[in-house]
Amino acid sequence: MPAPFVHELRVRYGECDPQGIVFNANYLLYFDVVFTELWRAAVGPWQEMVERGIDAVVAEARVRFHAPARFDDELQLHARVTRLGSTSITTAIEVRRSDPPRPDGEPVLASNLLVEGELRHVCVATTPADGIGHPTKTEMPDWIREGLRSFAAESA
Amino acid sequence: MPAPFVHELRVRYGECDPQGIVFNANYLLYFDVVFTELWRAAVGPWQEMVERGIDAVVAEARVRFHAPARFDDELQLHARVTRLGSTSITTAIEVRRSDPPRPDGEPVLASNLLVEGELRHVCVATTPADGIGHPTKTEMPDWIREGLRSFAAESA
Amino acid sequence: MPAPFVHELRVRYGECDPQGIVFNANYLLYFDVVFTELWRAAVGPWQEMVERGIDAVVAEARVRFHAPARFDDELQLHARVTRLGSTSITTAIEVRRSDPPRPDGEPVLASNLLVEGELRHVCVATTPADGIGHPTKTEMPDWIREGLRSFAAESA
Amino acid sequence: MPAPFVHELRVRYGECDPQGIVFNANYLLYFDVVFTELWRAAVGPWQEMVERGIDAVVAEARVRFHAPARFDDELQLHARVTRLGSTSITTAIEVRRSDPPRPDGEPVLASNLLVEGELRHVCVATTPADGIGHPTKTEMPDWIREGLRSFAAESA
Repeated sequence: MPAPFVHELRVRYGECDPQGIVFNANYLLYFDVVFTELWRAAVGPWQEMVERGIDAVVAEARVRFHAPARFDDELQLHARVTRLGSTSITTAIEVRRSDPPRPDGEPVLASNLLVEGELRHVCVATTPADGIGHPTKTEMPDWIREGLRSFAAESA
Repeated sequence: MPAPFVHELRVRYGECDPQGIVFNANYLLYFDVVFTELWRAAVGPWQEMVERGIDAVVAEARVRFHAPARFDDELQLHARVTRLGSTSITTAIEVRRSDPPRPDGEPVLASNLLVEGELRHVCVATTPADGIGHPTKTEMPDWIREGLRSFAAESA
Repeated sequence: MPAPFVHELRVRYGECDPQGIVFNANYLLYFDVVFTELWRAAVGPWQEMVERGIDAVVAEARVRFHAPARFDDELQLHARVTRLGSTSITTAIEVRRSDPPRPDGEPVLASNLLVEGELRHVCVATTPADGIGHPTKTEMPDWIREGLRSFAAESA
Repeated sequence: MPAPFVHELRVRYGECDPQGIVFNANYLLYFDVVFTELWRAAVGPWQEMVERGIDAVVAEARVRFHAPARFDDELQLHARVTRLGSTSITTAIEVRRSDPPRPDGEPVLASNLLVEGELRHVCVATTPADGIGHPTKTEMPDWIREGLRSFAAESA
């Protein structure tokens, strides 16, 4: 199975709530960031796809919160494409805290998994200029499918 | 079955993205708003619970996106408690667009359901003053359970 | 001098930071909300203006923070147009906490002013469909100027 | 005059609005990010200061918008401390687009300045554990003043 795509970011102050932890909605913001970066690595910049007439919208999201991330934490976002349908893309995402390497060289414990989730995107034709009307589902072009395969689980 | 709790809000410009629609992460923000308002109606202001030593954190969230909401749309958030566990609360939420009443008095079509989702909260003891350490799960007190029953499905 | 336009809102949990207070950037979000509502009352829904080929963008913002707002506070946003230029609109905004009426009927103290600021908008022609290119300044049409006068200071 | 502190970030999709540009409030979010990173370089991690009993809150913010940043733009945030008072810190911030180097080796044009602004922070004693009450202004300790001098204009 190919390695997941990994993107790192640091938690911003304004993303944390009065409990001192990342506000739950902001994980979907993080999911969007890692998906955009996976896309850049696999297919190219998002905007180039839009200029070619294709966009992708989120049809479903799922998030499980195991432990909180806090202000200034350095997070690793791991993403792996788990299903490539004819029009849809399913991505599994894990948020891990980038713990410092252990002094004895042992691997970092699995317990630094903070959040895990899943996004399902659907390919759509770009909306008309007036911005009215719902987007229309469209078949995923081969140049997208081929690119995403590099971060896809074998079964996808 | 009791009627769901309903809270209305209007989509803000800054909540919409370049597709001209509400950015997906912001639905979790909306979910939090309606859960807070349901809590106020069922139990009291959130902060009073925190002052009594109890808090609730989101353990799981699920969102399905059927149709987009746009800037300036008036939305109805419908919430219903679907499960009351010993420490957890599951809430089903629907986001509907407040379409104008039909001139002929017919009911508004079911098609104005934009987004549906589910939150699972877990009751925790309030964190210590230093803000360090993970919160500890705690049994839901009776005064919370009794309050939430007014918006709970019969089976909950 | 005409009364300012007033819009009320309640502070959301996700708008507050680990200090337990509204994160500073979110006051610009609030400013945008009250400006949109002032516009609705004075000119009509924002989107109708855009459909007529005119938009307005923020050219300058200024915020002074006197005292913090907290989660669940009910805020009053007061807005008054202080200058109407040939292409620009300057609006003074105050954020006040909606303190409960005093039992003896005395007016609420002036000390509930939390934040004050100013926005300067510039009228622009709506951007072309491709979304590329900077917007072009444009003369404010009379139907906008006339509408805004109802919330303008005499000198504006 | 010392070089300004520079921090780079990439514009996220969820930070952009239906005009396709970064929503104005999000520049204050960016200002906070660069100020936090300047602090890390000059004084140390923000949270260490808080643990020593000192915090800093924004008393005033000013933003001028010259040209829009768009989704996926790489931005350079330049920050320079322009005044160190007995309790306050004034920081001038510029947001520039990281244009690609010009093929002929000429310097990038000055026209890539998108936004400029200013923050004034005030040092306060950390709030008591109950989170009630306004923070109290406090003299800036020498270990903060000395650190900030490395990014201060000579006159500061």
